[in-house]
Amino acid sequence: MKAKRARISRGFAGLGCAAVSRVRLGDGLLGDRQRVVIGHSIEQQYEQLKLTGRLDAMRLVFREGSDHPRPHEFWDSDIGKWIESASYALMQRRDADLEARIDAVISDISATQRADGYFNSFFQAVIPERVFTNLRDQHELYCAGHLIEAAVAYERATGKRSLLDVMLRYVEHIAGVFGNGPGQKRGYDGHPEIELALMRLYRQTGDERHLKLAEFFIDARGTTPHFFDAESEARNEKPHGADFHGLRYDYYQAHAPIREQRDIEGHSVRALYLLAGVVDVAWTTGDEALKRACLAMYDSCVDRRMYVNGGVGSTRHGERFTYDFDLPNESAYAETCANISLMFVAARLMNLTRDVRYADAMERALFNAVLPGVSLDGRSYFYANYLATDPKWQRFERAYPAERQAWFGCACCPPNVARLLASLGSFMYSVAPGEVSVNLYADSIIEHEGLLIRQTTNYPWDERVRLSIEGEGKARLNLRIPGWCRRPVMKLNGRGVSLRGGRVVKGYASVEVGAGDVVELTFPMPVERVYADVRVRHDVGRVALMRGPILYCVEEADVKSPVETLELPRRAKVEAKWKPKLLGGVMMLEARGIRRCSAAKGLYVTVAPKAEPVTIRWVPYYAWANRGVGQMVVWLRES
Amino acid sequence: MKAKRARISRGFAGLGCAAVSRVRLGDGLLGDRQRVVIGHSIEQQYEQLKLTGRLDAMRLVFREGSDHPRPHEFWDSDIGKWIESASYALMQRRDADLEARIDAVISDISATQRADGYFNSFFQAVIPERVFTNLRDQHELYCAGHLIEAAVAYERATGKRSLLDVMLRYVEHIAGVFGNGPGQKRGYDGHPEIELALMRLYRQTGDERHLKLAEFFIDARGTTPHFFDAESEARNEKPHGADFHGLRYDYYQAHAPIREQRDIEGHSVRALYLLAGVVDVAWTTGDEALKRACLAMYDSCVDRRMYVNGGVGSTRHGERFTYDFDLPNESAYAETCANISLMFVAARLMNLTRDVRYADAMERALFNAVLPGVSLDGRSYFYANYLATDPKWQRFERAYPAERQAWFGCACCPPNVARLLASLGSFMYSVAPGEVSVNLYADSIIEHEGLLIRQTTNYPWDERVRLSIEGEGKARLNLRIPGWCRRPVMKLNGRGVSLRGGRVVKGYASVEVGAGDVVELTFPMPVERVYADVRVRHDVGRVALMRGPILYCVEEADVKSPVETLELPRRAKVEAKWKPKLLGGVMMLEARGIRRCSAAKGLYVTVAPKAEPVTIRWVPYYAWANRGVGQMVVWLRES
Repeated sequence: MKAKRARISRGFAGLGCAAVSRVRLGDGLLGDRQRVVIGHSIEQQYEQLKLTGRLDAMRLVFREGSDHPRPHEFWDSDIGKWIESASYALMQRRDADLEARIDAVISDISATQRADGYFNSFFQAVIPERVFTNLRDQHELYCAGHLIEAAVAYERATGKRSLLDVMLRYVEHIAGVFGNGPGQKRGYDGHPEIELALMRLYRQTGDERHLKLAEFFIDARGTTPHFFDAESEARNEKPHGADFHGLRYDYYQAHAPIREQRDIEGHSVRALYLLAGVVDVAWTTGDEALKRACLAMYDSCVDRRMYVNGGVGSTRHGERFTYDFDLPNESAYAETCANISLMFVAARLMNLTRDVRYADAMERALFNAVLPGVSLDGRSYFYANYLATDPKWQRFERAYPAERQAWFGCACCPPNVARLLASLGSFMYSVAPGEVSVNLYADSIIEHEGLLIRQTTNYPWDERVRLSIEGEGKARLNLRIPGWCRRPVMKLNGRGVSLRGGRVVKGYASVEVGAGDVVELTFPMPVERVYADVRVRHDVGRVALMRGPILYCVEEADVKSPVETLELPRRAKVEAKWKPKLLGGVMMLEARGIRRCSAAKGLYVTVAPKAEPVTIRWVPYYAWANRGVGQMVVWLRES
Repeated sequence: MKAKRARISRGFAGLGCAAVSRVRLGDGLLGDRQRVVIGHSIEQQYEQLKLTGRLDAMRLVFREGSDHPRPHEFWDSDIGKWIESASYALMQRRDADLEARIDAVISDISATQRADGYFNSFFQAVIPERVFTNLRDQHELYCAGHLIEAAVAYERATGKRSLLDVMLRYVEHIAGVFGNGPGQKRGYDGHPEIELALMRLYRQTGDERHLKLAEFFIDARGTTPHFFDAESEARNEKPHGADFHGLRYDYYQAHAPIREQRDIEGHSVRALYLLAGVVDVAWTTGDEALKRACLAMYDSCVDRRMYVNGGVGSTRHGERFTYDFDLPNESAYAETCANISLMFVAARLMNLTRDVRYADAMERALFNAVLPGVSLDGRSYFYANYLATDPKWQRFERAYPAERQAWFGCACCPPNVARLLASLGSFMYSVAPGEVSVNLYADSIIEHEGLLIRQTTNYPWDERVRLSIEGEGKARLNLRIPGWCRRPVMKLNGRGVSLRGGRVVKGYASVEVGAGDVVELTFPMPVERVYADVRVRHDVGRVALMRGPILYCVEEADVKSPVETLELPRRAKVEAKWKPKLLGGVMMLEARGIRRCSAAKGLYVTVAPKAEPVTIRWVPYYAWANRGVGQMVVWLRES
């Protein structure tokens, strides 16, 4: 029975995300969400790409005066993210029609690509004379980056190099235009993305030039003389300095060289896309100064500038990070793309450092800031993710409505949430030769080096997880002990395994397993009252409820409005109740609370409101706004 | 001693504002504020008008390519309001230099006026070909209105008709362009103001054509076919419908004929300037439908859409009213001009209906929403008046800073607060033949028909007011019993006068007085805890403190930040303490309260914050932000 012996071990080697094709999700919340995206969202988004002219735009059909809509700078990125999503779908389910659609788009892109390798459907159709003259604003390398990601994903899904070849030619062109050599531009894109894309390409090709180009963009950023100034002057425009739309270079993470940056600043998606690319470079090259900057910026983000749901970006003005502990709920931005980007960064650091705190942040963002980005039916999307809402407010505030939309003029979020959920398996499991880490729990199967690990669970509703091992050989299995869990229990083949005394390294418990081994985990999930640091001024005197990784909210659909009149007494008992027919099946929370009612008539009176007993019900935040438009609040007043 | 006999009486005839020249303010808060405005602000604003090119612009010095700054649509209105303020100063204190400055500006305006009577320094210098082609956006009649008000005030102050003659010619021109006749425009200004100005002119001239023109603008507004549409088409532009900057015609109060309007809608200053003019017309012509609309709109404003300080306008986006009970504190707009406009409307209804509730609203806005508009030194101004602030927030939110500014690009507020405070006397007292109403209490003297009424008080700090009568004849004296006062006491010549049993009519107690009579009033001022209707979602669970008419706030200068961690227990005793050296002399409030302190480290934790005892101090809200930049909160959490 040697094979059944297992050992809690310390220290690991570097891990990578599991290949999407190696993981299959089963029943349960995450599997359901992925099936809805693969089954509905990808199709619905293709229709939108067609309807809005984005597909046609790849063939440069637009001419001034023509009937075709004028393309937009971002359109190539929408196409790129859709191809990427669809590729992940193909990795899990062959679909000849879907593949044919992708091939058709790629064929258009290939035909449109310039002889010198350049490709950008907006510039080529609308302002061909201005190629690479305004990196700051016009997203050329951002679009290139998303198409590179798509190319890598499609090659992995199908083995077809059609798009990869297009993008390799384009990257060669870019490497000629940008660099430190004579006649080259010492520039970088206003919207980072090319950096992480090049690192993905580098992992695929092993071509050092791709790593070098990513390094170049990272090293150039924020140096002086400032590239955006030089570029403005070349266009005969004034450098914008501090006055351009009230923005400074921190909006573009270009206010200082990256190695000198410590706080996460500016546009949230840009900041976190960049950070993902910088993490890739820093840990690939072993650059300690870059690593230090990465870790500091990550901490600044997660320890001081992140909403309780794992969302980031405190204002829609500049879609950006603001300052420490500034996390207003009603005017939260927490763009779906930004929350996804935080998952990208957290997943990288999780693999590189093997520290569970990154997996904890990734799980928090996934369940509570990314899942809300798409409706339960997979056909509408949130751009901004409010943490409290009175839905009449947005119209006057000129903010995104508190209702998911089928599409957006700037449609970054829908295909981003699709590619994230379609590739969930790669976040759930990390692998290295001879080992598998389980980062997220969900009913699923992973194959690794001939071993098949079958995870059976109804997590996050059920606190029990069972992993049974089949197949050949052995592997070290690293099991995440969630940071939110106070009293985890683990059994190996029915025998308790102590999780104390240094046996859990940075939040991961390791066992060596082979065929026939069974690991059982229990993560008790009492309802937890969560409080924010008192410096978060909007949350003082308030409480949020979580159960396991799931954040809750109160919706008008379950209580009478106004929801802000509700109050949860400190000692009130909160019960969890399984509701199989509600919102696709959720654990609802319920407590006896208080409703404040005006005790005198008048807008301002000297009589304190009365307290009336009331039953308060909470639903998981990710599922809000699926039953019509209404008030919602995450942070409830506590008395 | 017949003269000493007095009688509480019911019912009054119509009242008008007292002439500014008949009232002199003495010591105390309001007198001090007026003296600072007359002594400093008017001079400081003149310097700004000069510095920014506004004075030169009256001579049309600007040419494309010239060194002079390009004028702006609103500049004439800044000049108008400054002349009006300076005229009120002249009514109270002769000042040959000031008068010479005004004469010089008027001389420029007069020289610039077109032969046909038209005057607009922006249009004449910049776009002369577009006169009266875009009423919706370009403020032509708004500017005319402010110059008309200036002309009337200056004539009253000095007897000089120079500006009045200019404006009478201009009004004749306007009356030719606008009207229901053939070839006339059936239009009205996007920014109301001309309506109330014409009514002021009408009261000065008695010329029915001025009343008729005001009526025309009011009757035309919001009718279909929509004038703004016709005007857009004439410019070959699309009518904006619902999509122009997200605004609808309600922004301009032009979404329906005024007689059909019931809620106060759109841009707050526009809405209330318009309402002031409509009130003037309705009560002048006796138009019952118009009166009904006025009263309903006023109620909608004050009962459902007004901040506790009497400020109005819930969002800076469109500087507008939003919807019932939507009164966010940190993003409050409550533009100083809007709050002043509310005083205009309230003062009119106070005089026309003799109902104290309008005087109550006027007093609330004056002390708590207009006084804060200017710094204690009279040299800087608030545009937006926040009811809570974390001063780092505005930069990221692209909102006005939480710090008064010396001037603004759109500089409507500084001269508006100056003209209001310079003319305070006319709000304090209302008169009719044989009677004087005291609407606001402050140390002052009023002369009326040979009688001199000397009001001695340190209101609003002291609850006692003494009125002694000198001079010839008799008058009915109507004394406002403030709505906030629970137990008013009144004595006539030392003898108590009962204020019960119908002896107070709509909140005014009347006595007939003559020389030698002395009225003593006591308005007990315990600190009151004020609660908002629970539908005001931002104020639930919170309390504001008022003492008499004065609203209080907590400033970082008096307590450690973060101010939001402070909490006032329901039963804590709040004491008032006179601080002669603080903020020009104020009554400070103090209580033993609670500060919430994080009990565990981390942005989100499962340990509730601790409660620590702390002394909380409040200062009058009007005086906030005079001791540097810091956090502030009006509505404190109550436990």
